[in-house]
Amino acid sequence: MSLMLAEIRQQPDVLERTLRQELRGVERLRKLLADRKPRFIILAARGTSDNAAQFGRYLLEITTGIPVSLAAPSIFTLYGASVSFGDALVVAISQSGESTDTNLVLERAREQGALTIGITNEAKSSLAKLAEHVFLVRAGREKSVAATKTYSGQLMMLYLLAYALGAAIRPDDLRRIPDWASKSLDLERDIAELAPRYRFMDYTVVMGRGLNYANAFEFALKLMETCYVVAERFSSADFLHGPIAIVERSFPVFLFAPGGVTWPSMLPMLEMLKQAGAETLVITDRSNREALARKHSIGVPARLNYSGPLPEEVFTPIPYIIPAQLFAAMLAAEKGLDPDRPRGLSKITLTL
Amino acid sequence: MSLMLAEIRQQPDVLERTLRQELRGVERLRKLLADRKPRFIILAARGTSDNAAQFGRYLLEITTGIPVSLAAPSIFTLYGASVSFGDALVVAISQSGESTDTNLVLERAREQGALTIGITNEAKSSLAKLAEHVFLVRAGREKSVAATKTYSGQLMMLYLLAYALGAAIRPDDLRRIPDWASKSLDLERDIAELAPRYRFMDYTVVMGRGLNYANAFEFALKLMETCYVVAERFSSADFLHGPIAIVERSFPVFLFAPGGVTWPSMLPMLEMLKQAGAETLVITDRSNREALARKHSIGVPARLNYSGPLPEEVFTPIPYIIPAQLFAAMLAAEKGLDPDRPRGLSKITLTL
Repeated sequence: MSLMLAEIRQQPDVLERTLRQELRGVERLRKLLADRKPRFIILAARGTSDNAAQFGRYLLEITTGIPVSLAAPSIFTLYGASVSFGDALVVAISQSGESTDTNLVLERAREQGALTIGITNEAKSSLAKLAEHVFLVRAGREKSVAATKTYSGQLMMLYLLAYALGAAIRPDDLRRIPDWASKSLDLERDIAELAPRYRFMDYTVVMGRGLNYANAFEFALKLMETCYVVAERFSSADFLHGPIAIVERSFPVFLFAPGGVTWPSMLPMLEMLKQAGAETLVITDRSNREALARKHSIGVPARLNYSGPLPEEVFTPIPYIIPAQLFAAMLAAEKGLDPDRPRGLSKITLTL
Repeated sequence: MSLMLAEIRQQPDVLERTLRQELRGVERLRKLLADRKPRFIILAARGTSDNAAQFGRYLLEITTGIPVSLAAPSIFTLYGASVSFGDALVVAISQSGESTDTNLVLERAREQGALTIGITNEAKSSLAKLAEHVFLVRAGREKSVAATKTYSGQLMMLYLLAYALGAAIRPDDLRRIPDWASKSLDLERDIAELAPRYRFMDYTVVMGRGLNYANAFEFALKLMETCYVVAERFSSADFLHGPIAIVERSFPVFLFAPGGVTWPSMLPMLEMLKQAGAETLVITDRSNREALARKHSIGVPARLNYSGPLPEEVFTPIPYIIPAQLFAAMLAAEKGLDPDRPRGLSKITLTL
């Protein structure tokens, strides 16, 4: 068994542990932020952590109303620009904590008096030393080059950060997520049966929208690094602005399709793709019967719709990425590739 | 001849006209902004205009030090979130001015008292009515579905906006750009000779970094919508965080390679790609001899390096996108496709 698959299976434990061990620090941060609400939020990251940041961007803006920006690290590292971050909250996210350019963004921001937070899996990393407040993803050492458990752990930390910033997220809501992650893991056998169909897939498009937009990036990244599939990633809205022209008969498209406010835009997209002869596979759950009824679908065996002040699909991203991770691990195996050692990659990436 | 090719050729005139006709309004805005510097800037756009916004993000942050964020329109349109934009400058960019979701972002921001600017090619559009300040890309009607002259016109407007915000850009610097665009058009015959080599290319990666990162998105979009090539787009930094695993023997990669601060990271990337057996094509100019010396290169026949307080390659994006546009138009012709009427697209895209 690959390390990747073993680490995918650890996620319910990782999520439970991160939530339990970090909640106290989050409560302290919550009190601090009550008197010092940042004017805007900058998220700095690369690779999988940047996909988590993409999720954070939507979650934080939707639930707190504070404007959020994803940092472009080269503005600091290559251009040496001085950007005015004094009243901002700057959050660097890195599995290893050793990403030189995201660390530099954090360092510059801290010099300017910004509130800084580091989210990392490594307690002794450079990032943990640089940030004023440090939160740990309690994933244990991640050995596979393909990040999985640290991604979902980072998402959990971003829910906690939203809570600290005053969002209507309750820790009790978050306590349900590890169980939902277990439900997703129950899909392992179904996905193993599905993977051989895609043995000769050379390229694909992965689509998501809103809170699941980040998952489209992350699924595509897993397909690229473990299966060597050329995997594009788009929001269904952006896809209509040009890229849809690439779709022809038998073009494979993967879509994250929760119920809630994004579904009324996903459904016509699915119909357009069908008209064009594309083959679609939706990732959904039991609360979206219409999506489950599509010819090809993966449905998390639980009802994941939330009812309360937050968007209906707010807690779908973690349970939804797990079948996608399983799919990438299984497809890599079908293709005879080792997902733990992709060509040209190592665990810590040095930015050139 | 395709409308796309005809419109590509109009760009020197468009750029000269936009600069000349909009400068007075920009000077007025400059005076206004001297007393009312925004705390941050939000850019809202879709499709090609969003690629222009991506350029604006780098240009404005580097040259003004004001934090910039690219809006995620669904946060407003689908989630109905209320984001705090009162002291922001919100800029919506749209060729047609009829993009419902970017218009909604602008409308919400204006209700909150934000300073709003619309950049559009259509003086009578909804966007032109909604925005407090309107700047026109003077491109004339754009008839091809594939946007070209409006992209470079939008880039010109973003240079002018940087100037209005106090950047060290002088209108005299900008007056050189139409001539450089003409120099790029001189490449038309060379590119026509190059295109057949790529007749059977099914997928590719386009790379850029910093100020040319947006061009990677825009070139990839042209390849998708006019040539139906599955075209990924990455910064060379992000490409190392996973996606590089997809590169195998004969994998085609296009790179924007100006001199200046991004070149020392592009050069090792080119070497890594060569080691992996990829075939690279660089787009550069006479000021980067090392790039020009690569086996496959397109060199704008001028020296485009700027010397002064701005980054050396600050004025390369417009002259560099033109050979890419020409390449897409020529390759579409080689493939027997009509770039003016891509399958599944129309000039105004309604967001679902």
